[in-house]
Amino acid sequence: MSLLVVGSIAYDTIETPVARREDVLGGSAPFFAYAAGFFCPVQMVGVVGGDWLPEYTEMFQKHNVDTSGIEIVHDGKTFRWSGKYYENMNDRDTLETHLNVLGSFQPKLPENFRRAQFVFLANGAPSTGLAALDQIQGADLVVADTMNLWIDIARPELDSLMSRIDGLVINDSEVRMLTGEINTVVAARKVLSMGPKFVIVKKGEHGAMFVSGYEMYIVPAFPVENVVDPTGAGDAFAGGLMGYIASRQGSLDDTTIKNALVYGTVVASFGIEGFSFDRYKEIGRSDIDARCEMFRDMASF
Amino acid sequence: MSLLVVGSIAYDTIETPVARREDVLGGSAPFFAYAAGFFCPVQMVGVVGGDWLPEYTEMFQKHNVDTSGIEIVHDGKTFRWSGKYYENMNDRDTLETHLNVLGSFQPKLPENFRRAQFVFLANGAPSTGLAALDQIQGADLVVADTMNLWIDIARPELDSLMSRIDGLVINDSEVRMLTGEINTVVAARKVLSMGPKFVIVKKGEHGAMFVSGYEMYIVPAFPVENVVDPTGAGDAFAGGLMGYIASRQGSLDDTTIKNALVYGTVVASFGIEGFSFDRYKEIGRSDIDARCEMFRDMASF
Repeated sequence: MSLLVVGSIAYDTIETPVARREDVLGGSAPFFAYAAGFFCPVQMVGVVGGDWLPEYTEMFQKHNVDTSGIEIVHDGKTFRWSGKYYENMNDRDTLETHLNVLGSFQPKLPENFRRAQFVFLANGAPSTGLAALDQIQGADLVVADTMNLWIDIARPELDSLMSRIDGLVINDSEVRMLTGEINTVVAARKVLSMGPKFVIVKKGEHGAMFVSGYEMYIVPAFPVENVVDPTGAGDAFAGGLMGYIASRQGSLDDTTIKNALVYGTVVASFGIEGFSFDRYKEIGRSDIDARCEMFRDMASF
Repeated sequence: MSLLVVGSIAYDTIETPVARREDVLGGSAPFFAYAAGFFCPVQMVGVVGGDWLPEYTEMFQKHNVDTSGIEIVHDGKTFRWSGKYYENMNDRDTLETHLNVLGSFQPKLPENFRRAQFVFLANGAPSTGLAALDQIQGADLVVADTMNLWIDIARPELDSLMSRIDGLVINDSEVRMLTGEINTVVAARKVLSMGPKFVIVKKGEHGAMFVSGYEMYIVPAFPVENVVDPTGAGDAFAGGLMGYIASRQGSLDDTTIKNALVYGTVVASFGIEGFSFDRYKEIGRSDIDARCEMFRDMASF
């Protein structure tokens, strides 16, 4: 069983109302991969510059992640993103984006990655996702994330990608933008007519929703009292969710989907308690399971 | 067993992106009372003008609500509120407020209302709630709702009210305003130091949260695809919740609280599918139970 992720790898500079961190590890693929690594082996594909720190490679390798798909462009710089969070810690402004080596990224999947059963195309240009899919044979489950930028500037490629995936993971504001529908449930249903068999709507501090042609599941967010840095929460949510599904051999029965939503939610809830990967490095699967139990006591009825 | 509600009774004029209704029945007490009436007998206290329609009295009487506490001021007019909803149907602007007879309302509880076991002080001036409490002996459970207006202009009375209630029901934005805390969980906990033993935070389309000194329960909202008019949803939520608790003899064990949150959520979800009481008049307890079952399949894990 193998879970492949293709996405951005970044150095983030984060400002929150109480602190600032410069050039810390971020990006959609790392957050997804680390979160999924709590549940199953992960194969990560992305690109970094000569400024990539070997300690990060080591961190992932020690955590169930095969890093042989990370391409290092020695004469380039890793993608940089900087953002500033508002006091509510839910809204943010992007301050700067420097694509650097990500700008010309062409994913090249190692031979043994091409037979991945489970594939997640983390947030990145739809053309990158399509190029990765062209190299993969016979995956059981292909899920993609997307965001407002691609809905704006790469709609044809995004439409083409949507016709080739089983599931879409997307923010609530973005699913409304993608479909032109104001009601989130109506918007989610409309996505199903664009290709995916299911859509998972991420609502940040308000939880998540899974919608397929004949099912709907909703889960609130785990209530975190001390939100330090929400960056990567959506990617980690998807990682926990896909990692759990992969560990259940890709089953999409109702119990597995609900548990996957819960695991995704709980894994993400740890991540936002620290900057970058700080909090993840302190926890193990038993901490996740214990918080899931607590969450069940709170939110299952 | 008796559940008493004291609150505003209004004629509302509602504008939504798709329709407009003039002078329809609204107010915190009617929405609460009707919702609670699905679960237990209710005693309603409020004031109306000479323009009150006897058909409304009849509607409540047929629905488990004792209307002998509705004071009719024949030479006055019923309280008017008008509001306009944004396209997201979650945010709204108040266009006009005419207090009319509500401006000089002094609640006078009929003798048999004064021994109510369960009391809900629906949204209204804190001084009205205090005046009602002065007339009540030995209630088992007293819960109050409040809103930004009273936090702004009647803080001393609100503080005094909070020292005399068991539970507070409040919107998420308002609990942050009341406490000066940005994180909803932290804000809810802070309310506990102001008097109430528990607080229920209403998050509109994002569900609700119950917090006491040693418990926390969260429930998402039931996903409604066709939101027609959200007016009164918070009051109906409280009515379903308190009505269910009263029907369980006031038990506050974990199962009862969770079920109460679910019943409140589901009752409110029907109300917003129509203007005013239109949708409520079409449904019965069996519809509520059926939707609760559907909700359990969606959201319990």
